[in-house]
Amino acid sequence: MDQKELVQLIREVTIRALANNQTTLEVPIAVSNRHIHLSKEHVERLFGRNYQLNKWKDLSQPGQFASKETVTLIGPKGKLEKVRVLGPARGDTQIEISLFDGYTLGITPPIRDSGDIDGTPSVNIQGPRGQLKVDQGLICAARHIHMNPDDATRFQVTNGQRVQVKVTGQRGVIFENVLIRVSPKYKLEMHIDVDEANAAQIKNGQWGVLIP
Amino acid sequence: MDQKELVQLIREVTIRALANNQTTLEVPIAVSNRHIHLSKEHVERLFGRNYQLNKWKDLSQPGQFASKETVTLIGPKGKLEKVRVLGPARGDTQIEISLFDGYTLGITPPIRDSGDIDGTPSVNIQGPRGQLKVDQGLICAARHIHMNPDDATRFQVTNGQRVQVKVTGQRGVIFENVLIRVSPKYKLEMHIDVDEANAAQIKNGQWGVLIP
Repeated sequence: MDQKELVQLIREVTIRALANNQTTLEVPIAVSNRHIHLSKEHVERLFGRNYQLNKWKDLSQPGQFASKETVTLIGPKGKLEKVRVLGPARGDTQIEISLFDGYTLGITPPIRDSGDIDGTPSVNIQGPRGQLKVDQGLICAARHIHMNPDDATRFQVTNGQRVQVKVTGQRGVIFENVLIRVSPKYKLEMHIDVDEANAAQIKNGQWGVLIP
Repeated sequence: MDQKELVQLIREVTIRALANNQTTLEVPIAVSNRHIHLSKEHVERLFGRNYQLNKWKDLSQPGQFASKETVTLIGPKGKLEKVRVLGPARGDTQIEISLFDGYTLGITPPIRDSGDIDGTPSVNIQGPRGQLKVDQGLICAARHIHMNPDDATRFQVTNGQRVQVKVTGQRGVIFENVLIRVSPKYKLEMHIDVDEANAAQIKNGQWGVLIP
């Protein structure tokens, strides 16, 4: 094999590798505004005894819903009003805000995966029937993709893996460290917060391309 | 050359290509909060006849300064108070806000390169001595890098080119379509807005890596 043939071979291998890299694996993107998941106990302390959250509308993830109820978050510098309560009630109360919201409150939320709230900041929560201070639970949710096992097979990714997602447009961005969350209960969707949506000028329902 | 030797050669070529790709071209990043550049005429209409802006502090770009003066922007949905006036006065008034600020005002600013304001939205501006409505000038500034011609040579880029900039960390992001602005007056610095800074959890003075 002479140099010319070798160069040709390297070219072909490279082109194939690039083409392989460019297989499009598209994911719909949803923008999460600030919201709160409440424990049953906290629902009762904020809304009254034996209170049940009232469904306002279904969310894309099966079983999850936005309730009609809202609360006010109170921090040392300011408050955030009409923060939507998501249902159903969970084991632990978790409050998800953007870094920008953190400036308003005067509390910097750490970037955390949902459910990982150990040692996160406390915040005051005001409801129509009571106020309480959670010991912890204030986070800025790490960008993530919900998918079911079939999606995971198709995308060749596993639960807990971090991937890149590319979003095109005038404010194009490649998001790194996007967490893959796999469960039979999940529907394929990437969740980002309002800061991330604005940075990439993303509207709800836009698609991104997953880069494993 | 047998297959084993060929594989070895391809491996070496690939490693060299990757190494070449990883040459680090670092750029310091500054976060621009909402601000306004005023024409001389508008300075007088908002602050009074023959008024001169008072320097509060120098900005990183030579000759540019943050003035002591602020104005209020008024939109159909809300207002933004204490918006910093940058000096010196310019030919045309230009107002730079984030997309998030746009929601507050109720006006969506287009993503534009600084100076490119034809057909952009109008907004009401309130100063201590007067109020005015600009015909146009409200933008969300496109992410860009200021540099002098020596930097441009070193980075192998030209004025007007768009590049990628990679920022590492928990919220790592690769910003695409970053405009290169070359002038002997400029000091090397990438400018992003507050939404972009939050999306990538960037603090003023952090560095990004330019990918030509």
